[in-house]
Amino acid sequence: MFEEVPAEEIARQRDLYGPLAQSVRELADAVIRTEADDDEIRVAQAEVEAVTKRLRDRQLAGSYGVRFNAAGQGRAWGNAVVGLRNPIAPPLVVEHDDSGRAWSDFRLGAAYEGPPGLVHGGVSALILDQLLGEAASAGGKPGMTGTLTMRYRRATALGDLHAEARIDRVEGYKTYAVGTISDAEGVTVEAEGVFILPKWARAHVEENPHQVGPIRYE
Amino acid sequence: MFEEVPAEEIARQRDLYGPLAQSVRELADAVIRTEADDDEIRVAQAEVEAVTKRLRDRQLAGSYGVRFNAAGQGRAWGNAVVGLRNPIAPPLVVEHDDSGRAWSDFRLGAAYEGPPGLVHGGVSALILDQLLGEAASAGGKPGMTGTLTMRYRRATALGDLHAEARIDRVEGYKTYAVGTISDAEGVTVEAEGVFILPKWARAHVEENPHQVGPIRYE
Repeated sequence: MFEEVPAEEIARQRDLYGPLAQSVRELADAVIRTEADDDEIRVAQAEVEAVTKRLRDRQLAGSYGVRFNAAGQGRAWGNAVVGLRNPIAPPLVVEHDDSGRAWSDFRLGAAYEGPPGLVHGGVSALILDQLLGEAASAGGKPGMTGTLTMRYRRATALGDLHAEARIDRVEGYKTYAVGTISDAEGVTVEAEGVFILPKWARAHVEENPHQVGPIRYE
Repeated sequence: MFEEVPAEEIARQRDLYGPLAQSVRELADAVIRTEADDDEIRVAQAEVEAVTKRLRDRQLAGSYGVRFNAAGQGRAWGNAVVGLRNPIAPPLVVEHDDSGRAWSDFRLGAAYEGPPGLVHGGVSALILDQLLGEAASAGGKPGMTGTLTMRYRRATALGDLHAEARIDRVEGYKTYAVGTISDAEGVTVEAEGVFILPKWARAHVEENPHQVGPIRYE
């Protein structure tokens, strides 16, 4: 979706929606961990429903999507991993360099649990799918995930983590990317992915390369 | 974690916490999609923060974990995919049969988006990791994910979906499971996974097989 929005307006929206989404992330954590009285729980539920009702008075008909402006700035604010407005997203703030590397430092709390005290194996896959995709995108040929192979070397504890990805090689419309998640002691999970530029997008990408670089959060 | 809780008490907690978590899932969707005025957004944020503060007055020190009682009922209510109390989880309600098959019908909304209008590839991995793990667990040898291989056959639109998994074979402490996600037109994503019973758990599983079956949500 193309939507011409000046940088100042994007900054203003970020300052408005970012803290709201963050407050709901904190609420989600509290809902998992609370030991409040039953009455308190019921009051909390009623208040949450009232807030939701007011926010829904005017809302998008569907999901947020990805919005690009003519400067090639993209906002994937609904994205399940990096979405500024998505309370489900940690959210990862992904950095990139010119060689197509992508990396992020982030913290995963109680909401990302699988085995007790550990990051859900599928959450590691969710994060690495995004990061490998961003590395592939930084190489100029973004794509849909074709295959993703995860190798779990050891358990990943909830807490502070680091993830990084890079392009291994490009073959036509296929970009092969690799990446890892690490804790303070080293790599816990490895991933390889193949990202394929969809047929319908190929002509568009060739004509508009500035619109399909890595999605940056302005 | 073993915690002796009668079935009626579990049912009572489910009726209390389930609707609260569901209300926060609705709120998360509204935060992504709202077009409310700036003042409304700021009021919503303040109210969410007030609810969170009250819920945090008394809370677990860490994540929820998995709680078993002597009857072998397990509650993974904090789990990122199936957790009744986890607003990040859709949550999937997973059914099992005696042959070790596991399946679920579920709906994914705006919070699970990757490409515009589509399920994030990593969300499909998150869901299939859980479902394959439950199939492996139903075979009596639950385990940590060793490897997970995803193959994306075509795009998966946000909306109503079905996932299923089964054990392909068991070799010692390794269980090989396979599964798919489908929409109304058929399979969109395939997965294969190897689940490995950790060394520290092997003696325990052999002595207490009733404690390690599929995690059921009572």
